[in-house]
Amino acid sequence: MPNPTAAMLVIGDEILSGRTRDSNMHFLAGELAKAGIDLLEVRVVSDKPQTITDAVNALRAAHDYVFTSGGIGPTHDDITADAIAAAFGVAIGVREDARALLAAHYERSGQALNAARLRMARIPEGAGLIDNPVSAAPGFTLGNVHVMAGVPSVFQTMVASVLPTLTGGAPLLNQSLRINRGEGDIAGPLAMLAERFPDLSVGCYPFQQNGAYGANVVIRGTDAQEVEAACAALAEEFADDIS
Amino acid sequence: MPNPTAAMLVIGDEILSGRTRDSNMHFLAGELAKAGIDLLEVRVVSDKPQTITDAVNALRAAHDYVFTSGGIGPTHDDITADAIAAAFGVAIGVREDARALLAAHYERSGQALNAARLRMARIPEGAGLIDNPVSAAPGFTLGNVHVMAGVPSVFQTMVASVLPTLTGGAPLLNQSLRINRGEGDIAGPLAMLAERFPDLSVGCYPFQQNGAYGANVVIRGTDAQEVEAACAALAEEFADDIS
Repeated sequence: MPNPTAAMLVIGDEILSGRTRDSNMHFLAGELAKAGIDLLEVRVVSDKPQTITDAVNALRAAHDYVFTSGGIGPTHDDITADAIAAAFGVAIGVREDARALLAAHYERSGQALNAARLRMARIPEGAGLIDNPVSAAPGFTLGNVHVMAGVPSVFQTMVASVLPTLTGGAPLLNQSLRINRGEGDIAGPLAMLAERFPDLSVGCYPFQQNGAYGANVVIRGTDAQEVEAACAALAEEFADDIS
Repeated sequence: MPNPTAAMLVIGDEILSGRTRDSNMHFLAGELAKAGIDLLEVRVVSDKPQTITDAVNALRAAHDYVFTSGGIGPTHDDITADAIAAAFGVAIGVREDARALLAAHYERSGQALNAARLRMARIPEGAGLIDNPVSAAPGFTLGNVHVMAGVPSVFQTMVASVLPTLTGGAPLLNQSLRINRGEGDIAGPLAMLAERFPDLSVGCYPFQQNGAYGANVVIRGTDAQEVEAACAALAEEFADDIS
């Protein structure tokens, strides 16, 4: 059975303007690979309601799971929750359980639960909350869409709460081989290897070190024996070029 | 006149599988902001011909410029050039000027221009070449699509050759203000500021330091006087909370 597929939607002008370097994509990609969920697409879009709504609708129709990051804070440009509600055609408003989480958090920290902060308790109808042990304001799950914060520490704890609730597949295994030959010398044998093992993915990542050419070949797949066999075949072929 | 818009397409299973952390997106975002070109969307897709073709066609129809990274090397999974040719409905084959660049490069480095390396001279009909002073294999421009390598050092030199040939707009300027208040206390005044300066983008990036809450507010826009005025208004409002 093929693994379930996923897409990620990163929401934030700060990434597109070059101010912030996104780190959530790389984190999520690694976690999904371990969970046996194939991340097939990532989109980064700006803080525009219709843009977010359209992207969510395209991605949730095409994939088993969608993960979003960003745009659920207290400021005027935090419009993700509204855009998701619009995508599903459901109402949105302050929810009592979310308000209670925020009230308790701000009471502990001695800050006011003002109108701006209360926006973070606005949850689309029918959604389940995603726990936020870092700063209380919850994420939420609606259908197959998991809506999480953009702040990396919060994003990571939210991913950690969500992943165990999902049905994964076979984790992606990988083995690497460092070959001291130019990528162009490896490419021919790699193509034949890829043909012989159609279920594996064979990647080649060239480098240059002290003037010498080399490449790291990464063989990925879900069947440990196949990955092992392909790696052994390659190691034999380039026996003289492996240090 | 509004700035021209752009999209980026990152091609590579190695990013979606979590093996590699992409750095080209952040680099390009910063360069485009300086050039006055608004990056509105980034997509990361896997090494599948139809997926790349569909994404290129969607993005080139919606934006003034499209920039791609990845998938133009010598290995079997380097299929970007073919996918772009398919997107434009044009033929693709080894081109003499591209072959000559590669032949000279491999002669200098004492490596063979074998069949795998010759794949890098396959250029869609009607495309212009993008210079690659690092490793010779050229990128290319077809219509409004600029096809570049995924290796960051090569990607960066290609962006440097392409950008001066494009018509940009007003560069995006920004000013930051560090405010020692929780994001939720700043959000109300920020919303009013954003309403007063509709042409500016106002972002708020919270942090926590030594147990105290604060946020960096970034005001972005193309009009220096407006950016300055908005920043001054905000600084006055939070005069007691700026260190």
